[in-house]
Amino acid sequence: MSRIMDSSPEGRQKKLFTPGPLSCTMAVKQAMLHDYGSRDAEFIDIVKDVRQRLLDIAGASPVEWSIVPLQGSGTYCVEAAIHTAVPRDKDARVLVLSNGAYGRRLAQICAAADLSHDVLEFGEAQPYDLAKVERQLSSRAYACVAAVHCETSCGLLNPVEALASSLRARQPGAAFVVDAMSSFGALPVRLDRVHFLVASANKCVQGVPGFGFVLARTQRLAQCAGNARTLSLDLAAQHDEMERSGQFRFTPPTHALLAAQQALRELEAEGGPAARRRRYEHNASLLVAGARELGLRPLLPADALCPVITAFLYPRHARFAFADFYQRLSALGQVIYPGKITSVECFRIGCIGDLYPNDVKHLLKCIGQVLEDMGVPIPVP
Amino acid sequence: MSRIMDSSPEGRQKKLFTPGPLSCTMAVKQAMLHDYGSRDAEFIDIVKDVRQRLLDIAGASPVEWSIVPLQGSGTYCVEAAIHTAVPRDKDARVLVLSNGAYGRRLAQICAAADLSHDVLEFGEAQPYDLAKVERQLSSRAYACVAAVHCETSCGLLNPVEALASSLRARQPGAAFVVDAMSSFGALPVRLDRVHFLVASANKCVQGVPGFGFVLARTQRLAQCAGNARTLSLDLAAQHDEMERSGQFRFTPPTHALLAAQQALRELEAEGGPAARRRRYEHNASLLVAGARELGLRPLLPADALCPVITAFLYPRHARFAFADFYQRLSALGQVIYPGKITSVECFRIGCIGDLYPNDVKHLLKCIGQVLEDMGVPIPVP
Repeated sequence: MSRIMDSSPEGRQKKLFTPGPLSCTMAVKQAMLHDYGSRDAEFIDIVKDVRQRLLDIAGASPVEWSIVPLQGSGTYCVEAAIHTAVPRDKDARVLVLSNGAYGRRLAQICAAADLSHDVLEFGEAQPYDLAKVERQLSSRAYACVAAVHCETSCGLLNPVEALASSLRARQPGAAFVVDAMSSFGALPVRLDRVHFLVASANKCVQGVPGFGFVLARTQRLAQCAGNARTLSLDLAAQHDEMERSGQFRFTPPTHALLAAQQALRELEAEGGPAARRRRYEHNASLLVAGARELGLRPLLPADALCPVITAFLYPRHARFAFADFYQRLSALGQVIYPGKITSVECFRIGCIGDLYPNDVKHLLKCIGQVLEDMGVPIPVP
Repeated sequence: MSRIMDSSPEGRQKKLFTPGPLSCTMAVKQAMLHDYGSRDAEFIDIVKDVRQRLLDIAGASPVEWSIVPLQGSGTYCVEAAIHTAVPRDKDARVLVLSNGAYGRRLAQICAAADLSHDVLEFGEAQPYDLAKVERQLSSRAYACVAAVHCETSCGLLNPVEALASSLRARQPGAAFVVDAMSSFGALPVRLDRVHFLVASANKCVQGVPGFGFVLARTQRLAQCAGNARTLSLDLAAQHDEMERSGQFRFTPPTHALLAAQQALRELEAEGGPAARRRRYEHNASLLVAGARELGLRPLLPADALCPVITAFLYPRHARFAFADFYQRLSALGQVIYPGKITSVECFRIGCIGDLYPNDVKHLLKCIGQVLEDMGVPIPVP
C-alpha cells in the first residue's frame, strides 16, 4: 500500500472530522467575502431569508414557531433559552436530564444563575431511565425541563419524543428546552410538546461558527418577556426586535450570517435534512466498519450509534498515546477530536460537515498508517 | 460636474461609513477562507497571537494585563465585564455614567441582572459633569463604576482619565469598567486605574464582527472568580481556560479570529494606533469641512468632535427625509448610519474601517448629488 506523505505547506486546509467548527464548502466561506452594514436593507433581507430557511428545515409552521438567531456559541443559545423560559420567581424550578458533558452544562447554567434545579444524572453515555424521569415528574412541579437531543460528548441520541409524552401527561405547563445542537439539520426532532429547540449554524447546517438560534414557540416566547437575567441572552427581546425591525439588537456576525445563507442553500440543493442524514449515515457506517478492522471499538453498542459523531475507545496498547496519535493524523491533514467522557478514555470522530465517503476512506487509511507507525498492532482479519 | 450613476449589480460591495460592522480589507475577509478545528494546535497559536497583538496595541504589560476574548457582540463583553466585576453581594453597588445610548445600555445591563445601581445621567451628547461625579463618589461606596469612552451614539469622547483620578482618590476599591468599543485601536486610553477595558474586533481594529475582548487587570480578574451570573458571560472562567489550555471554553468564531489576526497585522503595517488615528482624523476633517459646505451641521461643537464617527443634524428643509436620503446614498454604494439620539434628529457618518480620504471625497460628492436630487438647497459659498 502506498504511503501517505505529509507534503503540504503550513496552513493548508485539513479535513475536520470534528463536531464543529467543521469542514465547510469553499462556497460557504466565499460567501463571507462581503461587508454588509448590519442595519442595511440588504442585510435585513438576508437575515429574514436565513430565518425562513431554518423554519423550513425544521418543518415548523411560521404561524406557531419563530427562529430567534443569537450571537455567540451554541451554549449561549442554550443559556438564553433557559433564562428566557424560567420565570423570575424563587419557586420556579428546572429539571435537568444529564448523561454527558452537555447535560452537565445545562445544570451549570442553572447553578450560575442561581435557578432552583434538580439534576437526573444517568451516568455518562448511559441511556435515560424513563421510569425515573416519570417518577421525578410526578414528585414536584417544574417550570422548565431541559434535555439534550444528541449528547455530542459520546454520540448518544436521547429519546426526546418519549420525554415529550411524559411531560405532556405529567407537567403540561413546564417549558421543554431541547439542546439539539448537533442534530438539527440532519436528525429530525418531533416538535410536539417542545417549546425551545436550540441549535447552531455550524453543525449539521454546515455554516461557520458565530451564532446559534432557537426555534421557539412564538406564543410561549411572548409570555417570557422580562424573564431573562441578562440583556445579551434575552430571547424574548431579541425576537421582539427581529419582528419589529428585522434587525439584531446588537451587532450581529454579518459574515457568519452570509455563510449560513449559502450553507442553507446547499442543504436544500443536497435534498434537505433527510438526504444529508443519509450522507452522514453512509460516512458513519464506513467509519465504524473500517475502524473495527483497525481494532478500534466504539464506546457505544452498535444500536446506539448515531451518524453525527462516534466515540472510540483508546486501543489497549502501551504504544498508544492519544496526543501522539492526534498529532500524526493532523500532520496527514486529518483532524479528529478528543474525548469528553471522564470515566472512559476515548476519542471522537465526527462525520458531519463537507465530508464524503471518500474522505472517510482516506481518514481510515491514515489511521491505519499512523497506528502502524506508532507500533500499535492492527488485528489480522 | 459629472453625475455619479448607480451602474452596479445587486450584491456589489458598498462603502460602509458605519461604526461597525465596517469596511474591511479584502485580505481580512480572505483570511476567513479556512476552516480550523477550534481545539487544534494551529488555531490555539492563532488565538495566542491575536491576544498578544491586542495587548501590544493597548501598550499593556503582559505582567499586569490579560486579553480575554469573548464570543458575541461588544455588548456581551460589556455585560460580561460588569457581571464579572461586581461581587454576588446584595450591597454591591454600581455607578453608571451616561450621556447617550451606550451609557444607558450600561444601566440596562445592571437592571437586567438586578444589580443595585445609580445612574448619573448627563443628557444625550452632554459632557460629563465631573463635579457631580465627585459628589456622587463621595456620597456612598461603589463596587464598580462603569463609563463609556467614545459614546458612539453621538461621537462624544468622555474624559476617562479624569474619572480615573476621581476614582483613585475617592473609591480606591471600586472596579472601573470602561466601554472603549469604538475607540480601542485608534484613540488611546490611559490604563491608569482602569480594571476592565472592553472593546471589539470590528471597530478600529478593522476585523469582522463575531467576538469582542476585555483588557483586564489579571490580578483583579483573579479576585472575580464566581461573580458572574451566567456561564457564557463569565470572564474569569474564560480567562482561566485560556491560560490553562489556550482555548475558548465554548466554540469560538474561528473565522472571525483569523480575520482579526490579519486585521492586527494590517494595523501594525499601517504604523499602529497612532498612524490609524491620523488617517481617521484626516477622513473626519475632510468629512466635516465638506459636509459644512453642503449645509450639514455637526451635532457637537467643533472642539468636541472625534475622528471615529460624526453625528449631523438633519437639514431643516421640508424636502429632506432621512429614509429617502439613506436609500439614495445606498443606491450610489454609500452606506451611512441612522442617528441614535432621541432628543435631536440626526444621522451619523463613520470614518473608521478601510476608508481613505478619496472615499470620503467621493461620499461628499454623492451627498451633494443626492441633496440636489431631493431638492434640498445647498448653500452658495
